[in-house]
Amino acid sequence: MSARTIAIDAMGGDFGPRSIVQACAACLVSNPSLSLALVGQPALLEDILRAYPGVDRSRLRILPATEVIGMNDKPSHALRSKPDASMRVALQALRDNQVQAVVSAGNTGALMALSRHVLKTLPGVDRPAMVAALPTRKGYCQLLDLGANVDCDAEHLYQFALMGTVAAQVQGIATPRVALLNVGTEDIKGNQQVRAAALLLQGAGIHYVGFVEGDGVYRGEADVVVCDGFAGNVLLKASEGLASMIGERIEAQFTKGVMARIAGAVALPVLRRLREDLMPARHNGASFLGLQGIVIKSHGAAGVQGLQAAIERARDQIDENLPCRLGEGLAALLSQRSSHGGRM
Amino acid sequence: MSARTIAIDAMGGDFGPRSIVQACAACLVSNPSLSLALVGQPALLEDILRAYPGVDRSRLRILPATEVIGMNDKPSHALRSKPDASMRVALQALRDNQVQAVVSAGNTGALMALSRHVLKTLPGVDRPAMVAALPTRKGYCQLLDLGANVDCDAEHLYQFALMGTVAAQVQGIATPRVALLNVGTEDIKGNQQVRAAALLLQGAGIHYVGFVEGDGVYRGEADVVVCDGFAGNVLLKASEGLASMIGERIEAQFTKGVMARIAGAVALPVLRRLREDLMPARHNGASFLGLQGIVIKSHGAAGVQGLQAAIERARDQIDENLPCRLGEGLAALLSQRSSHGGRM
Repeated sequence: MSARTIAIDAMGGDFGPRSIVQACAACLVSNPSLSLALVGQPALLEDILRAYPGVDRSRLRILPATEVIGMNDKPSHALRSKPDASMRVALQALRDNQVQAVVSAGNTGALMALSRHVLKTLPGVDRPAMVAALPTRKGYCQLLDLGANVDCDAEHLYQFALMGTVAAQVQGIATPRVALLNVGTEDIKGNQQVRAAALLLQGAGIHYVGFVEGDGVYRGEADVVVCDGFAGNVLLKASEGLASMIGERIEAQFTKGVMARIAGAVALPVLRRLREDLMPARHNGASFLGLQGIVIKSHGAAGVQGLQAAIERARDQIDENLPCRLGEGLAALLSQRSSHGGRM
Repeated sequence: MSARTIAIDAMGGDFGPRSIVQACAACLVSNPSLSLALVGQPALLEDILRAYPGVDRSRLRILPATEVIGMNDKPSHALRSKPDASMRVALQALRDNQVQAVVSAGNTGALMALSRHVLKTLPGVDRPAMVAALPTRKGYCQLLDLGANVDCDAEHLYQFALMGTVAAQVQGIATPRVALLNVGTEDIKGNQQVRAAALLLQGAGIHYVGFVEGDGVYRGEADVVVCDGFAGNVLLKASEGLASMIGERIEAQFTKGVMARIAGAVALPVLRRLREDLMPARHNGASFLGLQGIVIKSHGAAGVQGLQAAIERARDQIDENLPCRLGEGLAALLSQRSSHGGRM
């Protein structure tokens, strides 16, 4: 196996192992230096692989796992009762350095719980956060958390802000602007957690720019937008739903008459690119930040292309050495906090 | 004064009394049976009114108020320290039956606090909710709360669901589908408040259809979507921001070349209508539901047209006799609850 091997939870997701194997076969062709480990039931996977005789088996192995975590399984159940689940075996392979990253399209809550349990978090991180990039008028912003942590206190939000800062720096933004998502920009606005987090962030040694509202996110007022997983998930999914609705309504206009069809030939490709761009988590997966290892959650309803994009995202994070640099960056920020009398 | 008189807080909003007076003058022309009471500093308002010599002064009077609540004033400060604020005088005129509704583009938190204090809530309502209609693939849904109540427990969410049901019935939907906004549709998903509210709603005598995610809101999975004000505000404002961004990106495409301009001629009018449609609170104001009186919050950044739409919304609610019907509908639903052993 190469130095870049990614374990794929072959049993997770809404579409089952067949589409996952298809994505893996395509990835191996387009990424000649990448190796993959399909984690799941060997007989089933070998059977599916028969449809891909050209696949380079020196770069594709199967890691056996007998159990499957269902999309509706409680995280606690997944943790306690399924020791040989594909998701867990994949994470153990990462922990044991057999692979360098894990990609799963399975149950998000279970993936988070198992990741924390098997891999552990980086020093200073109580909870990993789920992050993805959203398009804005000025480029992209990193939004976290996207739903892995529905309830967050000020300390969690503070840690997310630090992680988001370092992750944005790794992606080349020297001094990322960090904002807290809120219902107004004045100091008095918001719930207690958000107001307390604002106080923590003012002395955190990062470029904290204050509160941002939902519309400000898309205006590009920040490079990193921090919120609890409830608000983040609502923002992300509502945006996906709205982008789809707008796209369909406009497309419908381009079928009414000859001029409209001509216009549609120009407008529709633009529109479709935009829709893909507006569904980053669906199309590219979301990262779990703050773990001792690279874990990418591919959208459960991601098709073959989405899963491929998630695998390539994992590949990029291996090349960036993300967990290691995140750990170093966090340690540097947290040491400033200690010297300023923050939480020890 | 006519039986339909609406008090307008002439001092609130981002654009000041001049644009508010302009909207009122336009409203009087287009609504011949409507009367308005401008609440604010008489000398200032008379001075502005000089620019509108044609205005029918038999239908426009000035209610004097010397103080103004600023957009950044804390609600508690507005409540305690500004007894003669325009917003408060308007609400007192409603309480005293001098007018039949209040419209303000001022500070939302102060308007909510003063409304509760001056008008009181309907029986069975702990907190009024801010509601507006969002467009969906199937029509519209009522979303509440939009930001007046950032922290809500299960009981508040339950009350919002009941209010939303009755309000949708008043608008002609016989059996509105009611959903709780959540980060997933499975029972185990979400925070404690949302899960507890789901249990309350299963026996509430309304058509509760379960959890809805952000994308499901736009798919039209419910007629009434209930959430705390933090999530609702994030959803509403992110939608506004995204719709603007998509609109601008598409418009930019339609200026590049001849074919694109032709396409633009088809697409742009659709897009502009859609953008207006997607900013219901900005364009039509939001209602405060659950008060003993009609209060419409016009968006602080609403222009003349937005304020006019908010005034006409107040007019419609007067004609619908909304608070009275809401009170009756709630009483009927709450009596079922009592007989089934719910909270007394």
